[in-house]
Amino acid sequence: MPSAVTDLGADRLAALRSMLVDLDLDAAVISRAAHMRYFSGFTLGRGEEATSGYSGTLFVTASEQLILADSRYVEQAATEAPSWELRRTSDALAVELSGLLADRDALHCGLEAGALTHATWSQIAQLAPGSELHMIDDELAALRIVKDEREIDAIERACALGDRCLEHLLTVVRAGMTERELAWELESFLRANASEGLAFEPIVLAGPRASMPHGRPSEARIENGNVLLLDFGCQVDGYRSDMTRTVFIGPPDDGMRELYAVVLRAQQAAIDMLKPGVPGVAVDAAARDVIAQAGHGDAFGHGLGHGIGLETHEAPILRNYVEPLRTGMVFSVEPGIYLPGRTGIRIEDIVALTESGPRLLTQSSRELAVIA
Amino acid sequence: MPSAVTDLGADRLAALRSMLVDLDLDAAVISRAAHMRYFSGFTLGRGEEATSGYSGTLFVTASEQLILADSRYVEQAATEAPSWELRRTSDALAVELSGLLADRDALHCGLEAGALTHATWSQIAQLAPGSELHMIDDELAALRIVKDEREIDAIERACALGDRCLEHLLTVVRAGMTERELAWELESFLRANASEGLAFEPIVLAGPRASMPHGRPSEARIENGNVLLLDFGCQVDGYRSDMTRTVFIGPPDDGMRELYAVVLRAQQAAIDMLKPGVPGVAVDAAARDVIAQAGHGDAFGHGLGHGIGLETHEAPILRNYVEPLRTGMVFSVEPGIYLPGRTGIRIEDIVALTESGPRLLTQSSRELAVIA
Repeated sequence: MPSAVTDLGADRLAALRSMLVDLDLDAAVISRAAHMRYFSGFTLGRGEEATSGYSGTLFVTASEQLILADSRYVEQAATEAPSWELRRTSDALAVELSGLLADRDALHCGLEAGALTHATWSQIAQLAPGSELHMIDDELAALRIVKDEREIDAIERACALGDRCLEHLLTVVRAGMTERELAWELESFLRANASEGLAFEPIVLAGPRASMPHGRPSEARIENGNVLLLDFGCQVDGYRSDMTRTVFIGPPDDGMRELYAVVLRAQQAAIDMLKPGVPGVAVDAAARDVIAQAGHGDAFGHGLGHGIGLETHEAPILRNYVEPLRTGMVFSVEPGIYLPGRTGIRIEDIVALTESGPRLLTQSSRELAVIA
Repeated sequence: MPSAVTDLGADRLAALRSMLVDLDLDAAVISRAAHMRYFSGFTLGRGEEATSGYSGTLFVTASEQLILADSRYVEQAATEAPSWELRRTSDALAVELSGLLADRDALHCGLEAGALTHATWSQIAQLAPGSELHMIDDELAALRIVKDEREIDAIERACALGDRCLEHLLTVVRAGMTERELAWELESFLRANASEGLAFEPIVLAGPRASMPHGRPSEARIENGNVLLLDFGCQVDGYRSDMTRTVFIGPPDDGMRELYAVVLRAQQAAIDMLKPGVPGVAVDAAARDVIAQAGHGDAFGHGLGHGIGLETHEAPILRNYVEPLRTGMVFSVEPGIYLPGRTGIRIEDIVALTESGPRLLTQSSRELAVIA
């Protein structure tokens, strides 16, 4: 539906220009890959930022919208962002921008301090002494924090594929496989089925290794009596999924069962209180209290959840989000208990907030599962 | 050989401390993943920087060496960097660092402006007003620019695997395959055979698409009469390979043969002049002259070569490197001719500079190859 896409782009650009007015800025420079795609349609592959330079950077004023691209990317920019004026670049970003800012007498320019390196920012400040540079990261994140129906639909399709992937993995996993072999199964499934592959490097950890919340799959073998922690996501039409299940290879002992039950209760406590108007921090606290009351307060070191959309981790970060949650926000709910050298248990689902409460976009069972 | 690794780490740390003395700094903060691994052994997976926060950051003074890690990474840091004192972090980098700097009365601190975002740098400056912040990116790159024998050995093993991968690809490629299918063959081979997988997303481009120096593999089919450009690398024990070959699917016409010959002559001209003492820019110019004299000066838009090691692109960047090249430097030599809408040809090899001249670490034939 190309016309709908165009309208969507126009709405988003209008919101960006309102932001310029509100902040009293003459221009905005947009650098994050997710923002380039959100506003213009220009799309970098995962990891491509490492080599793409600043191609795809947007320069927006009240009356203009330029997309910057070097010789490698001009064809792509013209195709993917047809309603943007193309500016072919050959110099450093600071050199190109200083020219643009001077030509337009832009006194106040907003840039993404969280996306530009300090080296680049300093060089811009030095070469464009007539322009004051302002950080606009939070304001840009706020523009994307509430998802529209199309965005939620894409996230839901990514989550549904995550559910199918889990189902597949539970049919192939067996004691004796290595973490890496199972991770490869997981990746092959998602690359074959998701239009844009993985959202992040999958986490596949067995036994005591599951206590590392971001450990990498290794040559360690999955053994009887192990927990198996699977945390993975994929990308569909730009939008991402993210889910974690912790399953048991052979029947767990009572201690393990109890730990699992605590994590599940913590997650449910958080989900139960979700509705528009509740602050993110209160939801984080609800899950944390359950784990603390069970005597494992120190064993839950990370935040309860993060927004998800074009990026795996975006606003709102529940642990820091003191404002009320709003209809259309989409985020993870993922409490965990990590006991170094012993085990790790995490359960993660993605929730879209509706007027009447939470809607789970991941659908896999959260009951304790034992692989015979 | 754990003891050798420890000695190596000690040498590298001593060089870092000499740098502190030379620059009159009280402390250095090391942020780039390649530098963390180089100095301490702490290793992030490819792409893991997106989620690891600042875990693995090093803080070094004349008498101390700390490695910062949040709860997710403390086990890994203790295992991989046993000679470093571990500091478990829970706050923002700026908060943790401002405490460290104040406790030590550090008046001058060096940081990586090219690795830290401007947001983080500004927050550190704000929270540590007693410390002047200095950029030390170039000085750190200089510490790694000459490789030792073990490093060259690892790069050579990665290059040898690249050669084997090319050999494999040339046996499986056939007209009718899509670029993406061949890219998947390539990736599967390297992930099955290289200890740490790919160095970067492989470039597989057929026919006119080869004119995009960093194009992504697509559903385009490889057809008779196409050129096929393959640019890929892998990672072995942390060190990377990078190579490009352009082959022909069916016999090329005379125009194509001539273009290929020009690129090969340009590469050979650069290789022929390599010896310690020659400036990088002169080598770049030698290849560029050959292409310009053949009438294609505008069609070679990128630099001739880049250093390679723990990162795919590192110092020296030949095109900007006015200093004399030194024994132990390792870099690519990769001239190309790109004619948009028609074709692209690039030949890339990795060279280690020895006292007596260049040693090619990639060994694949550079003669024009035709796939029947």
